[in-house]
Amino acid sequence: MSPALSSTSNGPIMAIGGAEDKIRDRWILQAFCQQAGGNSAVISVIPSASREPEAMGQVYKDIFIELGAKEIHVLLVTESHHGEDPQLLAQLAQSTGVFLSGGDQLRLCTLLAESSLMKQLRQQVWQGSTALAGTSAGAAVLGLDMIACGGSGEAPNSALVDLSTGFGFIPEVIVDQHFYNRNRLARLISAIAAHPDKLGIGVDEDTCALFDANGQIHVLGKGAVTIVDPADVKYINHVKIGSSEPLSISNLKLHVLSQGDCYNLQTRQVQPLNII
Amino acid sequence: MSPALSSTSNGPIMAIGGAEDKIRDRWILQAFCQQAGGNSAVISVIPSASREPEAMGQVYKDIFIELGAKEIHVLLVTESHHGEDPQLLAQLAQSTGVFLSGGDQLRLCTLLAESSLMKQLRQQVWQGSTALAGTSAGAAVLGLDMIACGGSGEAPNSALVDLSTGFGFIPEVIVDQHFYNRNRLARLISAIAAHPDKLGIGVDEDTCALFDANGQIHVLGKGAVTIVDPADVKYINHVKIGSSEPLSISNLKLHVLSQGDCYNLQTRQVQPLNII
Repeated sequence: MSPALSSTSNGPIMAIGGAEDKIRDRWILQAFCQQAGGNSAVISVIPSASREPEAMGQVYKDIFIELGAKEIHVLLVTESHHGEDPQLLAQLAQSTGVFLSGGDQLRLCTLLAESSLMKQLRQQVWQGSTALAGTSAGAAVLGLDMIACGGSGEAPNSALVDLSTGFGFIPEVIVDQHFYNRNRLARLISAIAAHPDKLGIGVDEDTCALFDANGQIHVLGKGAVTIVDPADVKYINHVKIGSSEPLSISNLKLHVLSQGDCYNLQTRQVQPLNII
Repeated sequence: MSPALSSTSNGPIMAIGGAEDKIRDRWILQAFCQQAGGNSAVISVIPSASREPEAMGQVYKDIFIELGAKEIHVLLVTESHHGEDPQLLAQLAQSTGVFLSGGDQLRLCTLLAESSLMKQLRQQVWQGSTALAGTSAGAAVLGLDMIACGGSGEAPNSALVDLSTGFGFIPEVIVDQHFYNRNRLARLISAIAAHPDKLGIGVDEDTCALFDANGQIHVLGKGAVTIVDPADVKYINHVKIGSSEPLSISNLKLHVLSQGDCYNLQTRQVQPLNII
């Protein structure tokens, strides 16, 4: 039903499921620093999803200093026109890594979706010159179709999830976060039923799905990355789309992956396959 | 990996996900009465899972009287030796329908697992002379491997679910209930990862998976029946079994079915397949 996924992103792009360790081992934030160039890294933090962007920016700035990055900027976009600010655009141009904080994905998109800053960031990431990481709301925006909000405790149905438009760094996926922590598998299935040309990626807290330049997803961290693949779906009851009645959907493929696992976006398979 | 499922049960067997409507339309309880013979139905209620078995038995007795059943017995098994009581065995022998109430599946199993009553009931059901329904705990016991209890809010892992032994009416399945209502998909996946020769059946509240004599599952009610099929699984990280680390499992097949849908246990497919 679905074609093989393209690999628009040259990445690396890290979708972090929120609540990543900021105090102890900080494996995921360390991995991001490494991807951004280690001691040579010039990192821009975009804390616009947060209600307290200055404080949030400072949190990550302090961490990335401790982790040995060379230079850290906080790009404080709190009004739409900031996304056109030549100084921020110049700081972005120098950045080898960009970090999107958590908060509210709709706030982040409203502030930045159409901005020159976002266009430039997309170009830098697609050219492979900048590593991108987003946590929680910052991960939700990575796809083109975005889960704005939703519920749990119900069978998959159209009313369980509100969809909006994300930044489209990885257009072929829909990312959800705080995944099992907030019981979001039913809402991701609902989102994929509405967009069966996409691949659902659910990322747990303190866990990361790292999309590399070769079209592979690597799993880091203590939780799981869940992939909801509708490629073999033979049957969706479209009559029920738009209502809160439970959907019917058959032949959905699910992969639950953890630390060290690797998934190939082209073959849509986990590799290597250790046959049981 | 898994062979086609056998159809041990001549049924009908109704796995009800708990909280079935008892006041208004009562579609599911009506369907059970119908399966048990309508106006000719002789129904035995086994309320042993409940902490208040007498009151629970009376609730269902009153309903089945209102729904027009011919005769209703409450088989009050509150101590193990009651499962050998000749009077209860005689009442069971006359029954065209048996209803297992909700409560605690471990209490139900402890009281009845090895009893003559349960052996006789299994024989009657497998011969097709008695329709069986179980709700909530009464549904959990239908498989041979049984989910005794478990958690939610975590990625699938071995520690998320406690497994025990059920009554084995449908040995090839593991039934979970209150399914999306209590966010139990991760625990059912955990159970299936531990028993990849079984088929997971998750039933929502006020919803029923009706296993008919032809090896088909019919969905009734307002929620979903979710089927977790590991037949195509290529990879399970067995190292992680036994720990609370997230499991890795690839190529799990999922069907989310709702009212009117039908699943064939032999072909392991939804039918008819309305190709999208």
